[in-house]
Amino acid sequence: PRAKAPKACNLTEFVGTAIGNTIGMVIANVDPLLHAQMKLDKKYRSIGIVGARTGAGPHIFAADEAVKATNSEVVLIELPRDTEGGAGHGSLIIFGAADVSDARRAVEVMLGELDRTMGDVYGSPAGHLEFQYTARASYALNKAFGAPIGQAFGITVGAPAAIGVVLADTAAKAATIDACGFSSPANGTSFSNEVIFTFSGDSGAVRQAIHAARDVGKQLLGAMDPTPLVSTTTPYI
Amino acid sequence: PRAKAPKACNLTEFVGTAIGNTIGMVIANVDPLLHAQMKLDKKYRSIGIVGARTGAGPHIFAADEAVKATNSEVVLIELPRDTEGGAGHGSLIIFGAADVSDARRAVEVMLGELDRTMGDVYGSPAGHLEFQYTARASYALNKAFGAPIGQAFGITVGAPAAIGVVLADTAAKAATIDACGFSSPANGTSFSNEVIFTFSGDSGAVRQAIHAARDVGKQLLGAMDPTPLVSTTTPYI
Amino acid sequence: PRAKAPKACNLTEFVGTAIGNTIGMVIANVDPLLHAQMKLDKKYRSIGIVGARTGAGPHIFAADEAVKATNSEVVLIELPRDTEGGAGHGSLIIFGAADVSDARRAVEVMLGELDRTMGDVYGSPAGHLEFQYTARASYALNKAFGAPIGQAFGITVGAPAAIGVVLADTAAKAATIDACGFSSPANGTSFSNEVIFTFSGDSGAVRQAIHAARDVGKQLLGAMDPTPLVSTTTPYI
Repeated sequence: PRAKAPKACNLTEFVGTAIGNTIGMVIANVDPLLHAQMKLDKKYRSIGIVGARTGAGPHIFAADEAVKATNSEVVLIELPRDTEGGAGHGSLIIFGAADVSDARRAVEVMLGELDRTMGDVYGSPAGHLEFQYTARASYALNKAFGAPIGQAFGITVGAPAAIGVVLADTAAKAATIDACGFSSPANGTSFSNEVIFTFSGDSGAVRQAIHAARDVGKQLLGAMDPTPLVSTTTPYI
Repeated sequence: PRAKAPKACNLTEFVGTAIGNTIGMVIANVDPLLHAQMKLDKKYRSIGIVGARTGAGPHIFAADEAVKATNSEVVLIELPRDTEGGAGHGSLIIFGAADVSDARRAVEVMLGELDRTMGDVYGSPAGHLEFQYTARASYALNKAFGAPIGQAFGITVGAPAAIGVVLADTAAKAATIDACGFSSPANGTSFSNEVIFTFSGDSGAVRQAIHAARDVGKQLLGAMDPTPLVSTTTPYI
Repeated sequence: PRAKAPKACNLTEFVGTAIGNTIGMVIANVDPLLHAQMKLDKKYRSIGIVGARTGAGPHIFAADEAVKATNSEVVLIELPRDTEGGAGHGSLIIFGAADVSDARRAVEVMLGELDRTMGDVYGSPAGHLEFQYTARASYALNKAFGAPIGQAFGITVGAPAAIGVVLADTAAKAATIDACGFSSPANGTSFSNEVIFTFSGDSGAVRQAIHAARDVGKQLLGAMDPTPLVSTTTPYI
């Protein structure tokens, strides 16, 4: 679902909302009690907080752009089993910064990227497909997926998980890539019904692997349910 | 959803139903095979069993009243990832007792408390908020959250989890309280899309912290979706 | 939901679809990159892959028939927390084979069994019940549940989990059976809202235990919601 027009919210903590039932907020001075409970590094006086009911990959790739563009760091990435009854994850991502304006900027950049990173998510009542690509992975992708910093990096996601296995095989055969990881319902996901394959390599190879997997994924998920598989926003890869 | 009028169920095990797709039952003499599989203490011949599709906090706080009021103990609290497609937990709570009348009474008291403990649960299509308070925590709250026995104790819950982070900060700043715990999707929940903050302290301070968080939570969740945030039953805090 | 008529899918990987948003596929030659990531035994050049949004017990019992009937082995069984917003599991099951025709045959046999193994699944908006029985357990049931190979084996499942506790007690009291296991939301499930009780023994005793639990389960789940509890397909036990 597209983000609704944000209602007026006058709290200083509120930054904005975005697609996927996503909300972005900041805390200028984290209370010492909470600072301790969250085990935050002392150097972060401020945090930016983005959470979503639907979306993990789109949010992590968007967060990666935010850390590239701002003076902040990603201090926490957690993936609830959510998607509002679907097969996948929601997300909770926290940026740490010494200054609230940096935390706020990170949240703003991330919210602004989400329409793009939702572009290669394709859903139907039977499941969903997701593809993400970056020409240069940064710290959020490194933290979440072990992506090599500075390299081209991509992921293929299929739900139900069985489809994700075939997407991984298709990607691996389509181009010369290096595998980073393979996550399945009981290993590396939050019991989500997904297989996530992650890989780096030459920029052209990573994109080629994704294109091949996307083509196969649409045919397989399309065989399960007649709902047309259209981009959630606009394809970007 | 409110509890439907219970259909006639003549099984001796059946006790009743309640809000949240909750059911309460008793087993007078637990079969030795099951007794062993469940690793129950030998002193419990009877068990009371309450389970729900929707609700964990309301059920644990209700169970706490049940152990205060009856000659039973809480032997198991487990929180499935459920809420029927929502962001939170269901529950499975088991009382042990030497006598079936005690187990049954514990289930009855717990079912009877649920309309009250659902009073500060506020849901919308975007997520939910939950607040709970007791003037005197007992063994169920101690088992589930590490609440100090006999002290005033409260919790704030926000879903998506991002909102729960701001609720925790708001509560911590609003009054002098002692933090008990901070649970997030990957730490302390069952991968639910919630942040749960738990705290004890002076009775007035605990309530003040909850009031402040409740006010902020309604504004944040309200900014995500226009659905009015009304109490599931009647606010009690 | 019944399987829809499969759309034309011309990929060589595609085998078919079945009830429960289930899809079956094969990979004739698993790519070495994926082979390593999945930690597959070198002797399996080919894999058969079956995944579902809804169904774990039905899929594992169907997979058991597939390994009995074909020259393949079950190499992976994982149970996402899914059922499309319900209380239970989906599934990801992978067969290994030296030859793609064996992998394909295993997938075909499994897909063909699912209408039968969905026969004792009974759902309502409040939850679901599931019962499974085999006269002779094989390697899939051994891998998933520790079932003794070659013996009669059954399971009772209740959701919300509280009902599953009473089903287990009922089954244990109804006949002389040997308990294999007891899974609950936080122990042995993927945080699903189910209690699963598994047992072996004399064929007649296993069936008798299931019949007793099925009768009790329908009354308890029926007390929660007025929706008639009918078989998803046709009862087989």
